[in-house]
Amino acid sequence: MSTVDQLDQDTPAAEVDRRLDAAGAAAPEWGRWAPRSRAEALDAVADALDAGATDLVAAAMTETGLPEARLTGEVKRTTVQLRMFAGVLRDGSYLRIVIDRSDPGFALGTKPDLRRWLVPLGPVLVFAASNFPFAFSVAGGDTAAALAAGCPVLLKAHPGHPGTSRLTADIVRSALRHTGAPEGTFDLITGQEAGVRALRDPRVTAAAFTGSVAGGRALFDIASSRKSPIPFYGELGSVNPAVVTAEAAHERGQQIAEGFVASFTLGAGQFCTKPGVLLLPRGTDLSEHVAELADGVPPARMLTAGIAQRYRERLGELVNVPGVKVLLNGREHADQSGVPAVSPTLFHAGSVHNLHEHREVLLEENFGPSAVIAEYTVDDDLAGILEAVGGSLTVTVQTSSRPEESERARLSELLQLAARCSGRVVFNEWPTGVAVTAAQHHGGPYPATTAVLHTSVGTAAIERFLRPVTYQNAPDALLPRALQDANPLGLPRTVNEPGDSFRADP
Amino acid sequence: MSTVDQLDQDTPAAEVDRRLDAAGAAAPEWGRWAPRSRAEALDAVADALDAGATDLVAAAMTETGLPEARLTGEVKRTTVQLRMFAGVLRDGSYLRIVIDRSDPGFALGTKPDLRRWLVPLGPVLVFAASNFPFAFSVAGGDTAAALAAGCPVLLKAHPGHPGTSRLTADIVRSALRHTGAPEGTFDLITGQEAGVRALRDPRVTAAAFTGSVAGGRALFDIASSRKSPIPFYGELGSVNPAVVTAEAAHERGQQIAEGFVASFTLGAGQFCTKPGVLLLPRGTDLSEHVAELADGVPPARMLTAGIAQRYRERLGELVNVPGVKVLLNGREHADQSGVPAVSPTLFHAGSVHNLHEHREVLLEENFGPSAVIAEYTVDDDLAGILEAVGGSLTVTVQTSSRPEESERARLSELLQLAARCSGRVVFNEWPTGVAVTAAQHHGGPYPATTAVLHTSVGTAAIERFLRPVTYQNAPDALLPRALQDANPLGLPRTVNEPGDSFRADP
Repeated sequence: MSTVDQLDQDTPAAEVDRRLDAAGAAAPEWGRWAPRSRAEALDAVADALDAGATDLVAAAMTETGLPEARLTGEVKRTTVQLRMFAGVLRDGSYLRIVIDRSDPGFALGTKPDLRRWLVPLGPVLVFAASNFPFAFSVAGGDTAAALAAGCPVLLKAHPGHPGTSRLTADIVRSALRHTGAPEGTFDLITGQEAGVRALRDPRVTAAAFTGSVAGGRALFDIASSRKSPIPFYGELGSVNPAVVTAEAAHERGQQIAEGFVASFTLGAGQFCTKPGVLLLPRGTDLSEHVAELADGVPPARMLTAGIAQRYRERLGELVNVPGVKVLLNGREHADQSGVPAVSPTLFHAGSVHNLHEHREVLLEENFGPSAVIAEYTVDDDLAGILEAVGGSLTVTVQTSSRPEESERARLSELLQLAARCSGRVVFNEWPTGVAVTAAQHHGGPYPATTAVLHTSVGTAAIERFLRPVTYQNAPDALLPRALQDANPLGLPRTVNEPGDSFRADP
Repeated sequence: MSTVDQLDQDTPAAEVDRRLDAAGAAAPEWGRWAPRSRAEALDAVADALDAGATDLVAAAMTETGLPEARLTGEVKRTTVQLRMFAGVLRDGSYLRIVIDRSDPGFALGTKPDLRRWLVPLGPVLVFAASNFPFAFSVAGGDTAAALAAGCPVLLKAHPGHPGTSRLTADIVRSALRHTGAPEGTFDLITGQEAGVRALRDPRVTAAAFTGSVAGGRALFDIASSRKSPIPFYGELGSVNPAVVTAEAAHERGQQIAEGFVASFTLGAGQFCTKPGVLLLPRGTDLSEHVAELADGVPPARMLTAGIAQRYRERLGELVNVPGVKVLLNGREHADQSGVPAVSPTLFHAGSVHNLHEHREVLLEENFGPSAVIAEYTVDDDLAGILEAVGGSLTVTVQTSSRPEESERARLSELLQLAARCSGRVVFNEWPTGVAVTAAQHHGGPYPATTAVLHTSVGTAAIERFLRPVTYQNAPDALLPRALQDANPLGLPRTVNEPGDSFRADP
């Protein structure tokens, strides 16, 4: 039994229960901390991770084979995320406080004094991802958002990097302890059975997940069929189609080919935003350029043997689709880690008509460095392809830099459908590399996610772990401080005076 | 076969499909209307309902037996709601537009230009409620919120008032048609099978429901087990416990007894916010006062024979619980409608210990004019009762008008639990009568609702039918107008300049 296997043994049931007890006990106190105090705690966690970055990166290099620069950047992203949520807490508008003062002249009779804000849900179960050992793992975006909201986090580690997970968890727990956060605010469990046990537990009030459609859907079904169903924020599979207009191909074909290859092979194609389908105007030689460039990309180690195996199986399905040609056949190397390294594979599906006909196989995510190209003519139904995709994190559109009226008119329907089937429409850039900002949206209709209203990247991710509570006609001394007349926490609030009845909260 | 039965025949499957086609076809256009144009359409619907109020009230009186004043008030509430959402649309901040300008100096490398707003989900299926033939029915809060968001609505009528439903639907359709809204923006279907067929249809992107736990859970399960699961906003059952402090009982016992009786018998107890459990300090004679006052409440007709039957069965369960005494035995009268009229029934469960022991029966909603009283001593575990309730729309607390330190200290834990198990904490008023405002929250943990983050009353109800889309690096001419640099729609927007990276969106 290898070290990895030992580290990934299931947390025993009694121990899972003990950690759930602790999370449940921590929830009221952690949730009651003033936002600025939780901001300090998040900053302390970020500082501790920065201080431990060298060890963390070394551990992750050993376990994942990912390059040092990538992992160093990912630790940075992780601490930036934590500090960004600290900023959200200091700003305070995330609480969306609205105070409607009593209004005896309201159209439907006297309106009572009502004060609404958002409160934390309670303990959150986070399933870590395989492909981001830091930024979507133990101290990643879901954990940062839930802790910021005031929810204790029980983290189910990913088996792909168990040692890195434990090291990170030790740093997080220790930093939180030093800030005075209650025991149980953060803990780790390992193993699939332990994760499912926790997901079924009534103390868990929400869960977040990043991973495959099959795994995510199975967990969503458990969350939804509980006696008390809970929100399940699953970020599952995504095809991320990219469309190139004739004008764009003419203007900068080579640059587009380079950008596409760099994007679909980044991280050995193991990103949820990998552009998996490229739609090119017929009559260019762009697909050959793409194949040539991809042929120059060296093999890169996959994240786990299991992911490599599934990737191999999917390649086998794709190659057997009628009308599909292999433009580039990826190579596979084994090293001493036992996890293969692979170079890119590229398919040509022929026409978009053929792509649509075999959409069940061709328009499904393949996690790894492969992509499918199809070619369209002006009369072809590109919108139909987007409809067939159903739900995607992103749609990419490569246009000319200054689209003229004719190009704009042709794009009109396509862009409307892009917004309907995805959460982010990218122009003249590529979808990999998801900026962590207020305006980011990393989500989309199923199967991109199981919760179409929400994002798992950016500041809006905090909304997933908050729910409204309204106080009606409360004596001031019995209100939470955030809602008291004197506003002792100095929070931003919308106050509607009598007569403002139709004003919306911000 | 009665008129009611004929009107409630299932809409044939082919006709359900045709209406879903129409809703699907209407979605892009209705969703593209500028918010101010949709505001005008909602105002037009409100005007048309006001103009038809006399006929509507007459139809509902015949079908439901509810009194004229109540129904007239409810039509008013319905049109106020529609106009309130028109106000939300004119304000525009509901779109929560955030623009992050490109930032080459961002900590994680150049940040692209990102612009986020909210877009309508698509066709929404609304299941009308039994107990509000207008305000939670055809043109009720769910319909108003979904139409405001830009979603076509397919309304599954409640069998308790089918004629009123058709009359309302004709008015809504006709008013929308006059504003130029696309055909299919609103339509009606009838019958349970038709509703389930629509819920399973891939064109439906969300559903809203107000009704029983059993019915709501069955529909939630269907929505969650679809190939593409959709949000299901169910407002189900609620016990709405009320606690009276010793100080409050001493200060104004009689007033509290009067308020409680008026609230739990309002509308024959058929409100989702009916206070179903009253916790009194031991050693007062408040329970006798309550029973005396309730004895003076005349029988009121139930909404439907089915609801009356279920109510009768629940009374039978309650009376058989060990330690439960009947303080007041309700009478039942039949009139020519075939739907019985009932007077209030009141149970005394003894101690809160006994209430807790038999919580499976005693702490479950009974839809109708009954309530359960229990008495507590200072040492009793009131918080345990709230924990046993699990999820409730409201918790009511009757305190002295100026609570002193000792009363506040005793309430502290109880109030924290009240906020954890409910969506609205009511002080020194009663939970029935839900104000329609920005700060209102009509929701709560399961089984109060199936979607703990959301409200079905107040302006925030629109959020249920909107999802984010972000545009990255888009040429200005290809952006939706709402996101273009010149802001041609004049919408409120948060703009983050380079360096503002940690600022939250509002």
